[in-house]
Amino acid sequence: MAKIPNTVFSLRHFLVLSLALNVSFILRMFYDGEVGHNNSSLNRAKANNNVHKSRVVMSSTSSLKNSTCKDLTGSKNRIINLDHGDPTVYERFWRQTGDKSTIIIPGWQSMSYFSDVSNICWFLEAEFAKEVVRLHRVVGNAVTEGRHIVVGTGSSQLFLAALYALSPNHASQPINVVCASPYYSSYPSMTDYLKSGLYKWAGDADSYEKDGPYIELVTSPNNPDGHVRKSKVNRSQGLLVHDLAYYWPQYTPISSPSDHDLTLFTVSKSTGHAGMRIGWALVKDKEVAKKMTKFIELNTIGVSKDSQLRAAKILSAVSDSCEQENSKENESFFKFSHKVMANRWKQLREVVHHSELFSLSQFSPAFCNFFNRVLEPQPAFVWLKCEGNVEDCESFLRAHNIITRSGKHFGVSPKYVRISLLDTDENFTQFLDRLSTIQSL
Amino acid sequence: MAKIPNTVFSLRHFLVLSLALNVSFILRMFYDGEVGHNNSSLNRAKANNNVHKSRVVMSSTSSLKNSTCKDLTGSKNRIINLDHGDPTVYERFWRQTGDKSTIIIPGWQSMSYFSDVSNICWFLEAEFAKEVVRLHRVVGNAVTEGRHIVVGTGSSQLFLAALYALSPNHASQPINVVCASPYYSSYPSMTDYLKSGLYKWAGDADSYEKDGPYIELVTSPNNPDGHVRKSKVNRSQGLLVHDLAYYWPQYTPISSPSDHDLTLFTVSKSTGHAGMRIGWALVKDKEVAKKMTKFIELNTIGVSKDSQLRAAKILSAVSDSCEQENSKENESFFKFSHKVMANRWKQLREVVHHSELFSLSQFSPAFCNFFNRVLEPQPAFVWLKCEGNVEDCESFLRAHNIITRSGKHFGVSPKYVRISLLDTDENFTQFLDRLSTIQSL
Repeated sequence: MAKIPNTVFSLRHFLVLSLALNVSFILRMFYDGEVGHNNSSLNRAKANNNVHKSRVVMSSTSSLKNSTCKDLTGSKNRIINLDHGDPTVYERFWRQTGDKSTIIIPGWQSMSYFSDVSNICWFLEAEFAKEVVRLHRVVGNAVTEGRHIVVGTGSSQLFLAALYALSPNHASQPINVVCASPYYSSYPSMTDYLKSGLYKWAGDADSYEKDGPYIELVTSPNNPDGHVRKSKVNRSQGLLVHDLAYYWPQYTPISSPSDHDLTLFTVSKSTGHAGMRIGWALVKDKEVAKKMTKFIELNTIGVSKDSQLRAAKILSAVSDSCEQENSKENESFFKFSHKVMANRWKQLREVVHHSELFSLSQFSPAFCNFFNRVLEPQPAFVWLKCEGNVEDCESFLRAHNIITRSGKHFGVSPKYVRISLLDTDENFTQFLDRLSTIQSL
Repeated sequence: MAKIPNTVFSLRHFLVLSLALNVSFILRMFYDGEVGHNNSSLNRAKANNNVHKSRVVMSSTSSLKNSTCKDLTGSKNRIINLDHGDPTVYERFWRQTGDKSTIIIPGWQSMSYFSDVSNICWFLEAEFAKEVVRLHRVVGNAVTEGRHIVVGTGSSQLFLAALYALSPNHASQPINVVCASPYYSSYPSMTDYLKSGLYKWAGDADSYEKDGPYIELVTSPNNPDGHVRKSKVNRSQGLLVHDLAYYWPQYTPISSPSDHDLTLFTVSKSTGHAGMRIGWALVKDKEVAKKMTKFIELNTIGVSKDSQLRAAKILSAVSDSCEQENSKENESFFKFSHKVMANRWKQLREVVHHSELFSLSQFSPAFCNFFNRVLEPQPAFVWLKCEGNVEDCESFLRAHNIITRSGKHFGVSPKYVRISLLDTDENFTQFLDRLSTIQSL
């Protein structure tokens, strides 16, 4: 672990911090003023609580199980956990929508296992499917014509369903699964945890040169680094899974509707409803859609109808907000979320710009068909590099009570860390505060 | 396939059929009269629709994908699908409860991945856990003290999580998984579909004689035959998973609280909410609970919060109905469901009693601590045997447009079939009608 530095404050750091705090407070006053809900303080406390509690979770990557956590809000001793991408940043928007996004489910509803058995995906709720198609049309980020929709318990289940569906029947060896590094840190463990004889993790797509069939995962924009991606291997017999969890207007310019064989989306990152555990796949090939459905049948006998119905309501509210946008008071979900992300990235860049210890990726602006103008990408995660002599960026930041995820989990150097930008305003502000005070080793 | 018989009506058959229809109509008048909901006809149509649609599903076991289905209600040509245990029979009770079982979820609620990260099962909603403990106390069917609760996307996911958790680390060979036949038809495929190197299906527990560790599944009351079960193998190094999906007062006398190392329950069969996909495990060993939680994290990153909250509401309504029972108009869920099952079994036994073609298992009555009297088991499935020369009971009934599941899927003779008793009144009555007209080959 790196030495804990003696923190030195300079006037310049105070200025940057003060600017960041101001923007954050103005934003909070503006939005909280419009929320009339009685439970807002309760919920803020809960969100705060989550931050503290969540240090225990994901111990396999952060190894923090035994660390202590003192609840000193605002103090340097408070642990800020930005290890995982918990999308609580969007809660404020959903509080503003009121009844428009509320769902009521009577006790007698949705009791059957079945939704529509004339559909290949027999547990897919028609209302949810309808809203998926509508939202893709409104946003312009995916072709849905000629696709089968398969719903999953989050896109994680659909990722596993895709591996199952794309693995050749009766093969003597498991098929290789590859992804260009830096790749999503859970891909290797999700692929290998059951020691399946159907598929196995084969590492970085950039150095993959084997013959025969393989599965390549293409995450675009990429988790962790936010870059737009295409297939890397470019050999014959490649089966592609496109994970487009972050291909939404708040994160990246929507250049054209995605048009792949098998594409995964999730409400967790699009609308921020991670607790719903709802994802969907757009699948061109009928047999692949059937096998994915079979996987989910054997895995969980379908997907929660309650969450599908709620997701339908939420997606509908997003589409409505886009179609009915007419004033600042009535802004669309994507305008709201784009503004939040833009503010966060602006503040972050200012802090990092004044530091010699850290650096960020540069992104090229591109035309966004949704917002109808040229925009810069503003990813859900910061892919931060520790410059100079800091070899283990995760440990370095951990010494400052900031929990991040090391580059080594993404198949690259520990000089990099992934940091969530989707957390609460409180944690984000604290994070900037902390970062601006770190001047040297 | 068996020859299609020339159906012969006798006075005796008309009498049995008429009796069955009368009981069914009286029941329906009684309950429908108390339902004030506007959507009741819509829902009945939907339920009916499901019956017709569902013939396409589960094609792997019923191979009915290409069969035609004429919608002639009441006609002999109408296909009655009782292949799977879709618990729509309980819908009537839930309609009566009105607002007591309704849940309202605003758009901003339950957005985070996390529920309580101080808990081993960090995605377990506290309210759901509380109601699980309460219901087991009210019913007296399970010890919850000293247990960790792990929530799953149905008990299917928990079954897989249990296999993962109980498999030894770093073993050179997969651990054997066994269950005494007749066993639940999905156990073999669920165990083997990913060709896991951790565990593999090893068939009938009765004939299992290998040394070393193994996992034994104990389903009690058993699916398909309804009998109370204990572990069969009785060797050292056995790891037991108790699947108690049907250990509820409507199906079997509650003799004592179950007290095992790892026990699975599900709302699908207890309250009838299969569409929720919520199950729970009671786990004695902390490390096993941790590994099960890890499985669910890698499989689906948690379990729908919406469904957990709804399940909490439903379980609470069941406990309330037991604690507040004071009149016929205010009967408990278990009194209602016990009565429905008792009526169905009575009618079924009458029909089968008059037939020389079919036979049923006999069950010993036992004292039920919940109802405080001696009662007979009345399983969720009929385990029907075709007598005489009928070797393939599934095909024989299929020729009469009744879809059932053959004994061969449960590891035994095709002279047996499993038939769901949890379907709608309409289908049950039609089924009895059809059965009473089948006199000979």
